[in-house]
Amino acid sequence: MESIPILHMGDFLLVTIQIDIHDLVALNLQDNLTQRIAETGARGVLIDISGLDMVDSYIARVIGNIALMSRVLDAETVLVGMQPYVAITLVEMGVTLAGVRTALNADKGMTMLRNMAIN
Amino acid sequence: MESIPILHMGDFLLVTIQIDIHDLVALNLQDNLTQRIAETGARGVLIDISGLDMVDSYIARVIGNIALMSRVLDAETVLVGMQPYVAITLVEMGVTLAGVRTALNADKGMTMLRNMAIN
Repeated sequence: MESIPILHMGDFLLVTIQIDIHDLVALNLQDNLTQRIAETGARGVLIDISGLDMVDSYIARVIGNIALMSRVLDAETVLVGMQPYVAITLVEMGVTLAGVRTALNADKGMTMLRNMAIN
Repeated sequence: MESIPILHMGDFLLVTIQIDIHDLVALNLQDNLTQRIAETGARGVLIDISGLDMVDSYIARVIGNIALMSRVLDAETVLVGMQPYVAITLVEMGVTLAGVRTALNADKGMTMLRNMAIN
């Protein structure tokens, strides 16, 4: 089965979503990510979606769930790299990504995570 | 056209290859990456292939070329996350990945890049 790689970098985990994630791939990502947070004691998760041309409500919900699960395990989630037209479409669809922090790009997202880890 | 996202983090660029790259996607990655190195003045490129179950000689050559191009632009390339059976297959196929530095995982690869950037 396809699975999305999770990169461990310092205190943080990095996930780059490049393919449309549906059903099993999404569940698999949630499983693997929570497992990796527990194993590594990571303080934050950076999710990059710059490779996605389209984010539907299902993917948005998966990302929201990942953020909630990570928070329970004491890791903050920052979503980065959203294409401008993806942001427009999400708002037009009424998807708010409540509870998910966002940053413009991976660099800014990593800075945000570092600041959160210090406080 | 499908394109592989390039993440800019501090002094380095990060590429996670999750899909089989062929022809146009590979050329596109070379173009984008060299462009981004020039734009950002990045000192290193981390290429993660932990999501690949198979690395054929074409992909190995693309990675080798990327390393050569990056070096000309004063950026070192480190390849990380190779699955053990991928390493076995590459050696059995006679692919040596000459000129490409490797590290076990993204964390070690990033440390390697940082040390190279200091020296």
